[in-house]
Amino acid sequence: MRATIPSRLIEKKRRGDELTPEELESFFLGFLAGEVPDYQMSAFLMAVHFQGLSPEELDRLLDLMLHSGEVLDFSEIRAPKVDKHSTGGVGDKTSLILAPVAAELGLCVPMMSGRGLGHTAGTLDKLDSIPGFRTQITLDEFRSVLSKVGLAMMGQTEEIAPLDGRLYALRDATATVPSIPLIAASIMSKKLAEGIQGLVLDVKTGEGAFLPDFEDSLKLARIMATLGEARGVRSTALVTRMDAPLGRAVGNGMETKEALTCLAGKGPEDLTELSSYLVGEMLFLGKGAATPDEGYQRARAALSSGAGVDRMARLIELQGGDPRVVEDPDRIPTAPEVGVLRAERNGFISQIVPTVLGYGVVELGGGRRRMDDPVDLRVGFLLEKSPGDEVVVGDILGEVHAANGNDLARGLQILGTAIKMSEEAPRPGGPLISQRVTASE
Amino acid sequence: MRATIPSRLIEKKRRGDELTPEELESFFLGFLAGEVPDYQMSAFLMAVHFQGLSPEELDRLLDLMLHSGEVLDFSEIRAPKVDKHSTGGVGDKTSLILAPVAAELGLCVPMMSGRGLGHTAGTLDKLDSIPGFRTQITLDEFRSVLSKVGLAMMGQTEEIAPLDGRLYALRDATATVPSIPLIAASIMSKKLAEGIQGLVLDVKTGEGAFLPDFEDSLKLARIMATLGEARGVRSTALVTRMDAPLGRAVGNGMETKEALTCLAGKGPEDLTELSSYLVGEMLFLGKGAATPDEGYQRARAALSSGAGVDRMARLIELQGGDPRVVEDPDRIPTAPEVGVLRAERNGFISQIVPTVLGYGVVELGGGRRRMDDPVDLRVGFLLEKSPGDEVVVGDILGEVHAANGNDLARGLQILGTAIKMSEEAPRPGGPLISQRVTASE
Repeated sequence: MRATIPSRLIEKKRRGDELTPEELESFFLGFLAGEVPDYQMSAFLMAVHFQGLSPEELDRLLDLMLHSGEVLDFSEIRAPKVDKHSTGGVGDKTSLILAPVAAELGLCVPMMSGRGLGHTAGTLDKLDSIPGFRTQITLDEFRSVLSKVGLAMMGQTEEIAPLDGRLYALRDATATVPSIPLIAASIMSKKLAEGIQGLVLDVKTGEGAFLPDFEDSLKLARIMATLGEARGVRSTALVTRMDAPLGRAVGNGMETKEALTCLAGKGPEDLTELSSYLVGEMLFLGKGAATPDEGYQRARAALSSGAGVDRMARLIELQGGDPRVVEDPDRIPTAPEVGVLRAERNGFISQIVPTVLGYGVVELGGGRRRMDDPVDLRVGFLLEKSPGDEVVVGDILGEVHAANGNDLARGLQILGTAIKMSEEAPRPGGPLISQRVTASE
Repeated sequence: MRATIPSRLIEKKRRGDELTPEELESFFLGFLAGEVPDYQMSAFLMAVHFQGLSPEELDRLLDLMLHSGEVLDFSEIRAPKVDKHSTGGVGDKTSLILAPVAAELGLCVPMMSGRGLGHTAGTLDKLDSIPGFRTQITLDEFRSVLSKVGLAMMGQTEEIAPLDGRLYALRDATATVPSIPLIAASIMSKKLAEGIQGLVLDVKTGEGAFLPDFEDSLKLARIMATLGEARGVRSTALVTRMDAPLGRAVGNGMETKEALTCLAGKGPEDLTELSSYLVGEMLFLGKGAATPDEGYQRARAALSSGAGVDRMARLIELQGGDPRVVEDPDRIPTAPEVGVLRAERNGFISQIVPTVLGYGVVELGGGRRRMDDPVDLRVGFLLEKSPGDEVVVGDILGEVHAANGNDLARGLQILGTAIKMSEEAPRPGGPLISQRVTASE
């Protein structure tokens, strides 16, 4: 029994040795039962940050996390159940767009989402900006909405992967969030609990991603796809660019407006394109398209024609929200103070630094430093220009939406810091999607 | 203020960046005040294990630990105040020998010691084996005994470096004990609080040391000597061999008996020799000898003539113990079951593995896995042979002292595992003292 003394297991991991399945079970279930204290788990997690987890350890940890709670079963719904997960970026509002489109094209999307933390926002906060919309529903309501509309959206409940919830809170407080195996286990434990047959992973890379380094992003993509496939869930990961905000809006309510506009066929090109690619992969995994490209073509056509709008309205209505926002996004509450930033010289936009805007939203009160911080859903930034655009003095570069005059002044400063200018036209950025990863690769 | 958010400071250390003095102060004093929870500190300590501390960080941490409590001042005592500290080994009972000899030779030795943990024993437990001896005395009593006898021995009180006490408990529970800068800060914070002018550090190296690797031991020696000198305390470190138990006895009461025997001039050579070297260095630092070698010669002569015996008896009497143990060590309680292990074949003793005997004492109930374990001071091992000795079938290799018959049988098994034999004479071991380190080196 000596080997299961918690400090010995921490020591083993610290040294870089592999823990047996029994040791992992003893340590993690002991933690869940309150027998292994937080301070031992946080030391273990830091040791994992430095020493990693072997594929076998990660497999076991994922199973412990997944089965620490309920694994949903929607087998009564005949449509293929497919979901998407993004590792989080600035301005990323694809979930609100792709879920209704995918449902319109025959899939069932049981989407459980999180809240924003740090420089990235979360789908739940965006949904909260729709007047009346309830994300805190029961699993029975979720099931009911899902069977009626082909999609439903809710927050992760305590029934789903509670071990992940406990670990995540500790990782956040102890700077052990950016560990590739821990990220993989956390994401996959929640997604695999949704009872899906297919999963598309949008793994962000670049300055605005949690893992900025491309090799890290690729590694995370491969690990997650492999973990999903090993559990019978068809899984594809796209490594996508996050070196600038996605779309033009950054900030919860403003992003929701942009998503609804995009859903109506009038969104910015990058957002429309990425949403279409993601739906294309979902269709392919759900056997609604013979190839990802065929799926993409169908998705892009559906998006251009506004095919998901009515379905989104039905979803909002069934979950207690005001469905008129779909036709009229301006019904989403706006911040009282709006100001514009203008170019002070001629030149080109060389860069728009995503983290500056992401943390900027937090500073304006629209994000969280800690999970219990209150959030002002109205504030944020709206970009009028994109990297590569040429501007002349006086051109509007973007808007700041703020709660008061002080914040507005600060927001304009932040926006000015985020937008970098150059005299020469910058080299064009990399492709929107740099790698498509499946388990076999 | 963002930089002093605890999780950001953990992140900084995790990345390998250096913390400012203000950041360290905010984090560690916040911990002491209960504002930084254990789980954040343990993650930080694990990050330190992997990333280390810069000399400046270590300096600051040591000062925070040292000044978290009282720093003693014995300036009313004219004799030079010099102490010794050992990093801990198996069979190491030099403190009980060298303190009375050093006092006899004109030094003042204010010795605050710890209890045994894991495979090494502590001076306090050894003192507890003397009937009546009180180690839990007040600082006033300590001062009084010190001024009368030139030495006094007590446990670290909560007044001394309380931050170290809190950190040590956490390190022990989270497998972050063997970190060189953390070991250095822990040792030095307690020793520098003794109000001494000189400090001799016995840094063990080899299988039975906490840091088995020679380079690690040397690094620790250099760091500690430098930290001491920087604070005006003349500091010398000796890196000494711990690839076999020191002396013949392993186990608290049995070690005390051996120490008293050695003090009377009848100890085993290695123990007598190391004690003499350590006293020699103490005399040199306390300006009681012109060179370490002159100090060694005086110490060795004093030890051979039993010069420290009466002083030890006075110390024991003043601290409530039975002074007759000095003349008659057998007054120290003995275990009820004693058995001998005999050689089963002819050959040479090639090795006596110190950790096997150290953990063996724990298994016999004579040591601690956790700080609150009760301890049987009577049990242990007595070696009749040393590495290199030739033995023939039937020779007594050693004794086991145990609380009952079951333990005796187990103890004989352990002793048999610890003593390795070979057919050829083994190569002689390295020197007792492999390196002498001062701050200037």
